[in-house]
Amino acid sequence: MTNMSGFLGEFLGTLILIVFGTGCGAAVNLKNSYAKGSNWLYISLAWGMAVTFGVYVAGQFGAQGHLNPAVTLGFAVFGFFPWSQVLPYISGQLLGAFVGAIFVIIHYYPHFKETDNNNGNSVGIFATGPSIPNGLFNFLSETIATFFFVFTLINLGDFTQGLKPLIVGLLIMVIGQALGATTGFALNPARDLAPRFAYSILPIPNKGGANWSYAWVPICGPIIGGILAAGLQVILK
Amino acid sequence: MTNMSGFLGEFLGTLILIVFGTGCGAAVNLKNSYAKGSNWLYISLAWGMAVTFGVYVAGQFGAQGHLNPAVTLGFAVFGFFPWSQVLPYISGQLLGAFVGAIFVIIHYYPHFKETDNNNGNSVGIFATGPSIPNGLFNFLSETIATFFFVFTLINLGDFTQGLKPLIVGLLIMVIGQALGATTGFALNPARDLAPRFAYSILPIPNKGGANWSYAWVPICGPIIGGILAAGLQVILK
Amino acid sequence: MTNMSGFLGEFLGTLILIVFGTGCGAAVNLKNSYAKGSNWLYISLAWGMAVTFGVYVAGQFGAQGHLNPAVTLGFAVFGFFPWSQVLPYISGQLLGAFVGAIFVIIHYYPHFKETDNNNGNSVGIFATGPSIPNGLFNFLSETIATFFFVFTLINLGDFTQGLKPLIVGLLIMVIGQALGATTGFALNPARDLAPRFAYSILPIPNKGGANWSYAWVPICGPIIGGILAAGLQVILK
Amino acid sequence: MTNMSGFLGEFLGTLILIVFGTGCGAAVNLKNSYAKGSNWLYISLAWGMAVTFGVYVAGQFGAQGHLNPAVTLGFAVFGFFPWSQVLPYISGQLLGAFVGAIFVIIHYYPHFKETDNNNGNSVGIFATGPSIPNGLFNFLSETIATFFFVFTLINLGDFTQGLKPLIVGLLIMVIGQALGATTGFALNPARDLAPRFAYSILPIPNKGGANWSYAWVPICGPIIGGILAAGLQVILK
Repeated sequence: MTNMSGFLGEFLGTLILIVFGTGCGAAVNLKNSYAKGSNWLYISLAWGMAVTFGVYVAGQFGAQGHLNPAVTLGFAVFGFFPWSQVLPYISGQLLGAFVGAIFVIIHYYPHFKETDNNNGNSVGIFATGPSIPNGLFNFLSETIATFFFVFTLINLGDFTQGLKPLIVGLLIMVIGQALGATTGFALNPARDLAPRFAYSILPIPNKGGANWSYAWVPICGPIIGGILAAGLQVILK
Repeated sequence: MTNMSGFLGEFLGTLILIVFGTGCGAAVNLKNSYAKGSNWLYISLAWGMAVTFGVYVAGQFGAQGHLNPAVTLGFAVFGFFPWSQVLPYISGQLLGAFVGAIFVIIHYYPHFKETDNNNGNSVGIFATGPSIPNGLFNFLSETIATFFFVFTLINLGDFTQGLKPLIVGLLIMVIGQALGATTGFALNPARDLAPRFAYSILPIPNKGGANWSYAWVPICGPIIGGILAAGLQVILK
Repeated sequence: MTNMSGFLGEFLGTLILIVFGTGCGAAVNLKNSYAKGSNWLYISLAWGMAVTFGVYVAGQFGAQGHLNPAVTLGFAVFGFFPWSQVLPYISGQLLGAFVGAIFVIIHYYPHFKETDNNNGNSVGIFATGPSIPNGLFNFLSETIATFFFVFTLINLGDFTQGLKPLIVGLLIMVIGQALGATTGFALNPARDLAPRFAYSILPIPNKGGANWSYAWVPICGPIIGGILAAGLQVILK
Repeated sequence: MTNMSGFLGEFLGTLILIVFGTGCGAAVNLKNSYAKGSNWLYISLAWGMAVTFGVYVAGQFGAQGHLNPAVTLGFAVFGFFPWSQVLPYISGQLLGAFVGAIFVIIHYYPHFKETDNNNGNSVGIFATGPSIPNGLFNFLSETIATFFFVFTLINLGDFTQGLKPLIVGLLIMVIGQALGATTGFALNPARDLAPRFAYSILPIPNKGGANWSYAWVPICGPIIGGILAAGLQVILK
């Protein structure tokens, strides 16, 4: 039962995260969108607020609002979170992100049809990619960015209550502004993997390759970064 | 008496919503405006804050600050709101939106005079329109956007108290950023219908057609989306 | 003694309002400024936050944080504020705004020297002006904008406490975005008159005319708008 | 022991301040960054939020979240802060800023490699510089900006609790917008000196001179400004 509320809350929260965040990616990139060509502040702010409202909804359904396997795993490894909940949490996160991607595809369907491949591969709407491809440093970038995200997050206290979800959203925003300009700040394996998978298998007009060769970076970097952050907190406190 | 405070609060709140939101539309579109050509972030943020202050004022006058028939109906259908209040609420919302449009016309009157039709039809200041006209998908866009708006809104708890109106405003902002780039995020029949009607009948210099053939989308989509969101909440909780 | 704290608080708060707000005007307009050419969102946001921190500081010194004769007068006329305090409040506001302008001149002195008149008259840094000169409608614009500002402000409750100064700042921001694009949203006789006077009499390099023929609009419009708003509140509540 | 928590909290808080703030500088300036060319609002907002989260983390570790020797000294001179803590605080601030600079260098390493000197000296990512070089007025600018920062900060009360760190961040933002356009708003000797030193001695690809001849301004101006602000508060209260 508790497991169920964890699954449901994380599913709904990550669904909202991806609808708002990936929706913003579509808004910025697709042809004829009213927000076409919006800047990095727009993107950082929208992803931040996407997290804010995902956390609010997850919290209302009794989940902790991680919305992110790197947070769930980092917390579990150092005893901030019970291992028994890890599976329902992460499966809720992955499924929520997948379903969120479907909503974005329907919402922007006519825009996908008008955006041909010459405007660039639309995979970037769903999944992150590096501005300078470099396996080692891309991995370090995701690790560093997630490390600072999770370490700060732990020190915000219970972040689902009161106005704290707003603060978490602003944390994501500033990390996007400061550290997201290299690899697009996945920070979160579910946010990258599930929509990439959705992009890969669903019938999206004019789609290109899903760039699976890069997919390990936004999975491994965030998980390592999240574990290091939780470990540092244990050492220091 | 209670009905009266509901009417008055929704009237004043929706008046403020439309003065600030439609005012922003005028600021961005009319010739010689200091904010001419401002971007989608500007528009999303202004509409968000327009809701914030509409909710604050409506709450002070004893209303719930729906400012939106789609919220009122969605809540009523599933028992979150008494049917006896639906009529005063919706009539307050429609009348407030109509009067708000009048203030914007007066405020920007010399700018309307200088903006001739070659700069484009000024109906977009008052009412939404699709970036890609497509009846089915435009309807789906408004339905999806309102669904996520109302579903998240329900899970914010009593949103007229404390700093919650700010959170509601940021919710509108991120929905504008993420899902508003297709149809201009009406989300609200009163916000679209009453100003469109005002545009249609009032003496605005250099005005064009009111695009009535599209008006069903921002009425039906939001109402369906709001009812679906409230229904899902009932099922899940 | 109470009068003294009113004077001091309003002086300090309005000083901060003008240093931050007029400073932003200088940042956007003067040659070689790092923020040269910033947009209307930048200006609206900065003036909003300028009010926020002016209110915080005024509140700490025991004043109500009006920072604005239109608010003080509007409140006094309808009994929200004692007449005995009106003079110390307004004199604090005017003096604070004057001293604030001096700080901005010193802060940006080398930039004023490099900005010659061909780049346009720098009076717009200190005082507002209309985008379309039209006495009647400029007056109506300032009246309408101040009316909605003061009416909403009254309904925020005690706005110096907790996080309410932030909400007041966001109110100024959205009014700037929605209604400020016509006349530059003075909303406040002190904010316009005292810096215009400072511009007029102080030795600013490359300065132009102070446009005194327009100065009545941002004095009379806000005072009328503030009184109308307070009066409406009395009628409705 | 208390000293130790002061050192650790200030170290961690200033580390986060510099990773987010200097990271933003790298994001805006380095080649191929997704945020390349972002505007002054982006920079002001990111530095503001960098302070917000630095304060949150410092507060969690039992420090007061000064993150800034000008604040620590200004408070100490007028008895708001014990002299016995000044050394651990300032050494934590300097060391945290130095380590923060190292993280930014690693994070953006491939971007530093691709940004050659023709794109301009990358010292501006780490340390501030004047838009118009003028020793006296640059010093006055930093003094004035820090004076208004510290004076307002003192009047915010205990700024590590609740949502107050957000307000501090917005204070930094508006000071950046209003007063930062002349010298880049160091406001803080640690924020400028330690990353400048890191830039000077660490192996950063394509680096230029560290502009040490300017380094006294963002040390002396903020210290004088901070002391003046704390002194004024003592006089007025």
